[in-house]
Amino acid sequence: MPPTPPALPGDAEEAIDTPALLLDLDVFEANLDTMARLLAGTGAKLRPHAKTHKSATVARLQIARGAVGQCVQKVGEAEALVWGGVADILVSNQVVGAAKLRRLAGLTKLASVAVCVDDAEQVWALEQAAEALGTRIETLVEIDVGMGRCGIAPGPPAVALAERIAHSRHLGFAGLQAYHGLAQHLRRAEERHAAIAQAAEATRRTVEQLAQRGLHCRIVGGAGTGTFEEELASGIWTEIQAGSYAFMDADYAQNLDAAGRPVGTFGHALFVLATVISVARPGVAVLDVGHKGVAVDRGLPLVWQMPDVRCVGCSDEHATLHYDPGARSFGIGQKLRLVPGHCDPTVDRHDWYVGLRGGRVETVFPVDARGAMR
Amino acid sequence: MPPTPPALPGDAEEAIDTPALLLDLDVFEANLDTMARLLAGTGAKLRPHAKTHKSATVARLQIARGAVGQCVQKVGEAEALVWGGVADILVSNQVVGAAKLRRLAGLTKLASVAVCVDDAEQVWALEQAAEALGTRIETLVEIDVGMGRCGIAPGPPAVALAERIAHSRHLGFAGLQAYHGLAQHLRRAEERHAAIAQAAEATRRTVEQLAQRGLHCRIVGGAGTGTFEEELASGIWTEIQAGSYAFMDADYAQNLDAAGRPVGTFGHALFVLATVISVARPGVAVLDVGHKGVAVDRGLPLVWQMPDVRCVGCSDEHATLHYDPGARSFGIGQKLRLVPGHCDPTVDRHDWYVGLRGGRVETVFPVDARGAMR
Repeated sequence: MPPTPPALPGDAEEAIDTPALLLDLDVFEANLDTMARLLAGTGAKLRPHAKTHKSATVARLQIARGAVGQCVQKVGEAEALVWGGVADILVSNQVVGAAKLRRLAGLTKLASVAVCVDDAEQVWALEQAAEALGTRIETLVEIDVGMGRCGIAPGPPAVALAERIAHSRHLGFAGLQAYHGLAQHLRRAEERHAAIAQAAEATRRTVEQLAQRGLHCRIVGGAGTGTFEEELASGIWTEIQAGSYAFMDADYAQNLDAAGRPVGTFGHALFVLATVISVARPGVAVLDVGHKGVAVDRGLPLVWQMPDVRCVGCSDEHATLHYDPGARSFGIGQKLRLVPGHCDPTVDRHDWYVGLRGGRVETVFPVDARGAMR
Repeated sequence: MPPTPPALPGDAEEAIDTPALLLDLDVFEANLDTMARLLAGTGAKLRPHAKTHKSATVARLQIARGAVGQCVQKVGEAEALVWGGVADILVSNQVVGAAKLRRLAGLTKLASVAVCVDDAEQVWALEQAAEALGTRIETLVEIDVGMGRCGIAPGPPAVALAERIAHSRHLGFAGLQAYHGLAQHLRRAEERHAAIAQAAEATRRTVEQLAQRGLHCRIVGGAGTGTFEEELASGIWTEIQAGSYAFMDADYAQNLDAAGRPVGTFGHALFVLATVISVARPGVAVLDVGHKGVAVDRGLPLVWQMPDVRCVGCSDEHATLHYDPGARSFGIGQKLRLVPGHCDPTVDRHDWYVGLRGGRVETVFPVDARGAMR
């Protein structure tokens, strides 16, 4: 399928074909500026996670505001960014399989590319891939600091793995990956604080034990939109990997500050624009987008600026809205903005961003790494 | 991103790069044959739903076994199929918006294309689009037979809308769309029977009232994998719109027959192949695919032929498996097949089908309408 864009620069918002992935450029740029300001002077760098935006264009705008590079989860995402001009990438995950390792090694000839391991077998395979291409691959040890997914245990097991990297001929030990994804979505500030305090202690201990063996962590990476201020305050992390802050979704917007109010540091910049296609029953409007176009893994989307209208279900190609027909009406063809429950997988279902300013399309640019799962 | 296929014909299953969308060709062809056999002699035709497979190749294999054409939900899906050689398509949904209607009208010059309406405003817009192109658009009235989503009320409201179509100059009244999607997923046979009996009664009554006004239903469309035998038995539906039967997912596999046993008419032909990337903790294996590659809207995937291994979570790019480390072990690089909870959105996240026979890749073909939401 040729990916025809849903709009052209100059179009009014009402003229955009739907479903479309809409970016409010004013709010988006304000989010980038806010994050740059929050990190200034902390000593930590920003390495935003491109699994959120999958776009070399977004990456460049982040780097222009001081980000040191990008994180990705997949070699395919790294390729899309390198081809789009990004010079410094960390694959914040294990890369397994000979074909992927050949691609990873090849990329190191075009850009600075690092990767994570949590097992000696991965170190061995990386070493082979680097040797075959006569290159050197910067390698981080991923430690499990509470996520319960990938990552070797902090402390001595992590140190032993780092020593294997340091002793290999074609790999360089670059530091630690210490990401506590579950903590991002704890709603209460004190819960997030406690989770990150524990992760920080495990990470600090491992950094110290590495130092005792003469192993320096150039990178201690982790953190996300929900907790990066905790990671910053600890002074342990050198690189913050937040991704969703640029767009903000309905899920992160539920996080509360110490006073019990929504955190509100970043604004909603990303929407899915949809059209009302059916109003056959009173109090029910049906939209032309379902979970093939807006992710529901972290809850149903919200209808932007209509708190009285509830999305009650998303099937493959339809979202069903319920409302009080005495208080409001919808017409066939009317366009509505949805705030996705979860940005990352929502972006991955679209081929194009439609950038809006002042109610008009200012720019249209591709989701370069759409579907880059390998 | 150039969509590089994850395998080439001749590759062994173990050599396929992951995540990949795997089609077991023997089971797939048996499913197509079974459905053709079940419909033979019933008087009803099969018009499989392409929102499941999004592939002109799959459509042609279905048509070669007697299917009259294809259903789609979106104009973009219709375009992908027409460009791939499918001659008869029903858009089983409302198409709203001038740009989409121009595309729909244009397609009628290349193939037989029909569409559904549930409101007079849609009829008016369709008439304008058809007139502008000097074409004629076959139009069905969608009635709500229990789904509670799109569809005008059966009986007199539907008849009045059909008369508007019949009186327009550029539209042809083609019949009724009567789809009860909710009934598909009722687990017990008697629940499905009761829901379809009610839908059949409402549809029969509407067909009769239309006939009294001289309006003939060339098509009465609906049904799906979960209930098509009920729709067939009623004698009302002339076209069966099952889609998932070709692939089967974990969700439909939970439907029970009258004796309380899994229905089992169709076999699992569609899988997501994944690689173990981390075994850092005992009893836990992490795969290189998450909900960006396997849909979780109808539950987590199953691990094929390993009932003792449970998928306990899918994040963006990881699936986490739990197992008894005393009974089983996994190695980094090991490949596993997942049975998706829901086929349709899983297919939509991939660019390629990898068709397997006898443990080897026989063919690789594209998901032509991947992401065709507009």
